[in-house]
Formats: sequence, C-alpha cells, structure tokens
Amino acid sequence: MSLVVVGTMAYDSVKTPFGERDRALGGSATYFSFSASFFTDVKLVAVIGDDFSAEDLDMLTSRGVDADGVARLPGKSFHWKGEYGYELNEAKTLDTQLNVLSEFDPVLPESYKDAEYLFLANIDPTLQRKVMDQAKNAKLVACDTMNFWIEGALDELKKTLERVDILIINDGEARMLAKTSNIVKAAKEIRAMGPSTLIVKQGEYGALLFHEDDVFSAPAYPIEQVFDPTGAGDTFAGGFMGHIAKMNEEKLNDRLLRQAIIMGSAMASFTVEKFSVDRLKELDRKDIADRFRQFKQLTHFEDLSDQI
Amino acid sequence: MSLVVVGTMAYDSVKTPFGERDRALGGSATYFSFSASFFTDVKLVAVIGDDFSAEDLDMLTSRGVDADGVARLPGKSFHWKGEYGYELNEAKTLDTQLNVLSEFDPVLPESYKDAEYLFLANIDPTLQRKVMDQAKNAKLVACDTMNFWIEGALDELKKTLERVDILIINDGEARMLAKTSNIVKAAKEIRAMGPSTLIVKQGEYGALLFHEDDVFSAPAYPIEQVFDPTGAGDTFAGGFMGHIAKMNEEKLNDRLLRQAIIMGSAMASFTVEKFSVDRLKELDRKDIADRFRQFKQLTHFEDLSDQI
Repeated sequence: MSLVVVGTMAYDSVKTPFGERDRALGGSATYFSFSASFFTDVKLVAVIGDDFSAEDLDMLTSRGVDADGVARLPGKSFHWKGEYGYELNEAKTLDTQLNVLSEFDPVLPESYKDAEYLFLANIDPTLQRKVMDQAKNAKLVACDTMNFWIEGALDELKKTLERVDILIINDGEARMLAKTSNIVKAAKEIRAMGPSTLIVKQGEYGALLFHEDDVFSAPAYPIEQVFDPTGAGDTFAGGFMGHIAKMNEEKLNDRLLRQAIIMGSAMASFTVEKFSVDRLKELDRKDIADRFRQFKQLTHFEDLSDQI
Repeated sequence: MSLVVVGTMAYDSVKTPFGERDRALGGSATYFSFSASFFTDVKLVAVIGDDFSAEDLDMLTSRGVDADGVARLPGKSFHWKGEYGYELNEAKTLDTQLNVLSEFDPVLPESYKDAEYLFLANIDPTLQRKVMDQAKNAKLVACDTMNFWIEGALDELKKTLERVDILIINDGEARMLAKTSNIVKAAKEIRAMGPSTLIVKQGEYGALLFHEDDVFSAPAYPIEQVFDPTGAGDTFAGGFMGHIAKMNEEKLNDRLLRQAIIMGSAMASFTVEKFSVDRLKELDRKDIADRFRQFKQLTHFEDLSDQI
C-alpha cells in the first residue's frame, strides 16, 4: 500500500569523533523514504533548492520512491551542520540554514491523495496539518516532532496531535511534552492529547511502545562502532511505517506494531554504521532478515513463571 | 545450593519526591539476602553496630537467612543519607557514616566455607578478596563495585576482578572502568580484566548481559510510581544469584543467565515500589511468577525474518 511522507531533504555537514563529511545527503524525508522503500511504495513530499543534485534524487526514484511531490525552488536546499562528541547520543547543532525550507508549502499531487498511510516527519505542526488536510483517505497517520516545536509552538502542535494516530518521539521530548519525568505517566498524558499509540525512542537503549493497555519494550542493537547517529530516528520511522503499510492489516494491532518497531530498529541500526544513507545503499533483504533475527536472539528468554 | 553474600547492613535516611524515612533498614547485603531468600539458602556476612535492632535481624533469619556471619561490634551501624530528585535515577548522597563498617573484617564461619556460590556486594575490593580467600569451594563468584573504588582503588579492584566470574555494575561505572563511552567496547575491555561474564545495569532502561559471544538485552519493567530506587541494584543481584544457586546447573550458560537476569529485574521492580524492603516483605511466589510473566509479555514479538 502506498505511504506518503512529508519532511525535509537536506545537505548536512556532520562531524563525529570518527570523521567528518561536508554536504552529506540528509533530511528526515530522505532517510525515511530510503528506509521505507525496502517495504512499500513511498510517495515523497519535500522541497529542494537548485543545488540539489539530480543524482541524489535519482537514487531515491530508482528505488521506486515517487518524487512527484518534491518541489524545486530557487535558492539553496536546507542545510544542517552538527557535531557529535564521544557519547554520540546528542548532536550539537552548529548551524541551521532553512533556505528554501522557509518557503515550504507542501502540495500533494493528485496521485498522492488516496494514499492510505501518512507520515509527518519533524516539520512545523501547521504544515503537518496542511498535509493531513490533503490526504483525506489516509487511514493511519503517524508523526514526529521535536523540542523546538514543543517549546515554541505548543498550541499548534497540540492541534496536530489531536488528529494523529501514532506519535513517535524520543524520551526527552516525551518528558518535555508531558511535563513529567516518569515515562509511564508521560505516555498517559501524551495519549490523552490525541495519539492512541505512542512510541518513545530511547536512543541506545531501544524504544517503548504504548498501545491500548499494552507496553512493549524493544531493545537497541548493541553496536561496537556507532559512526554517525544522524538520521537514525527517521530511518526507524521509515522501517516502522514501511512495514505497517506493507502488511496493510485491517486494524492496527499489538502484534503488528511490535514487529514494525523491531523492523524500524533493525533499519536504524544499519544507518548509524556509516555517514548519510551510505549503509542503507548497501543493504539487501538478507541483511535485513539477518538483523531482524538478531533482535529476536538478543531478547529471547524462556518463561519459567510456572516453576517459581 | 547455598549462597554466601558479603556486604553492608545499614540504616538509611532517604528522601524522595514522594516522602521521606529516617533509619530505614538498608544496606547491600540486606537487600541482596532478602531477595535471594525467595530462591535459595543464603548465608550472610556483614557487620552491625549495637544499635541494630534484633527485630530487623530476625526478619531475615525468619526467612531462612543464616546470620552466623554477622558480627556485632560496639558502636553504630553504617548509615547513609541520600535524596532523590524527580528524575529518581541517581541519589544525591548527603551523608555517609561508616561507623562499625570501618572496622569490618569479614570472617566466614566454618559452616559457610563450602558454599558453592558467592556474591561480593559493593565493599572495599581488598575485603572482597579476603572473603574469596576463605570461600575456597565457591564455584561461582560474582561481584559489584562502584565509582568510589574505580576512582580511588583501581589497582586493588583490578586484583579482585581477575578472580571473579561475573561482574555486575551500572553503565556509568562500566564506561568509567573501561575508559570508553561505547558500551560494547567497554564490555570487551572489562571482560579482559577477568570476569568472563558482565552484566551492565541501565537503570530504568534494563540491563545488558555479555557472556561468551552472546549479548542479551533485558528490559526494565515500566513502573508508573517509582517510589524509592534505593536497593534496586542489590535486589537485582539477589534475584539473579538466588536463581542461579537454586538451579545449580553444571556450567554457567546463556539460557540460565538470561532467566536469572529477568528474575533479578522482576525482584528489583518490586523493591522500588516502596521504602526499604517493605515491598519485598509483602511478596509471595505468585507475585514473582506474575511479574516474570509480565517481563515475557513486555518483550515478546514474532520473528518474521523469513518473510522479509
């Protein structure tokens, strides 16, 4: 089934303790659509400048990603410059140049409007709603956000949250949004704002899923060489939504959500092994299947509750 | 099989955002032995002052804990005073009075010396070795330590680590001991120091096990009301070692270690629900079995690697 994503396409300058790269292909919609393209048809909505290389766009379309919704405007593409310390868990933003992103007015091509699945990457919550207004047939809407909108546009963000089914955010953002440090309480508060399903990303510790009365704890894959964490969250979301769209089940359910989270985690675990989407470019289905199996192995234990 | 533990018995003054208590029964050996007593015979080695109440000691012996190795010295028992903020992940130590602990010279009663399992709670690494010297028949030795010894007695600690089978520490301590932030690399460094098996506690995020070529990721139980985290780590160790001693398998193996970690996590998840050992006092086998089952439910997902 087809999956529409709206987000950023960017060139990033990234420095990690292991190296640096200028103008690495990046942006939430780039990582998301590359990751999701392993599982389903992806329709991309974004804005790029006239500096955006045809090669980079071709790389996505050659994977079956529909780029009809990518608008090219005069000016430069969105640019982010950041640096990671040895901890690698949080980037220090050195520079953000919105460039053409400041004029982003997402318009869905006609061919996008009957898409069943919609992912709103981390952009202005007003724009997120604008996309929802156009995708009338979406039966499942998931979104991401960040501290910038929680702090600076909370009312707008809340209007968006009222209308989404799944919110995917990191644990610091969840605590900030709910104004409480306990993550179980925070999940309750946030789900009362609209999203019936909440996924809390915990970086190197994995992720928590809150759905109906159920909680699922997904591990992170222990990686000896985390090279560049940029894009991990969007790659996770791409694997997650890609799997859900592929399965296209009648109703969102716990079994499906759990598998989708592991799929997202598996995809994210690849992204951080190299700069940009370099590692994703090398992947085939066998790599993904192997990693999924490793997640199963990583968490398996025998129930002995009847012997206690 | 019998399990010897050496550690502290204390009275703690604890303040959390939810309340405070003076002279709450505490200490690593107290939490450990209470927790392990659900699974196996526990033999306790510790020192107490003349202020230590007979009632508190009776509470442990009435659970089958052997207190022959508990020495009572003139003076006051070890006292720790700490406070937790809303984050509840790290205590701020307000006062530490070693009192009789400063004269602690652990001597194992004859009846302890053929114990198969030994746990060295967080005390001076020189004392930890002194206990090992007396427990000649121990077939499995596990230990804990803390930043205080890593910073102040690293050479002594390393001499201890050379001789232990399992080290159980938290992730901050693991990074400090290995001088590296990546936890997979840290695990390699630490296991090269001696312990073939390493358990890294990650607080509210669970725990990681490194054993032979295997990694296991255990979740933490999501608790809406963490009341007082004091003793969680020692309760974890008690459930972990208690289960291993109970099963008394020929050889340490991955299946056993994984189950033991979940058992430890289940026990720890109870401790934090109330002050001191109050919650442990209320437990029966059914509570523990139910919690174990919840851990299984919390992490279960279906392998779909053959459908990718």
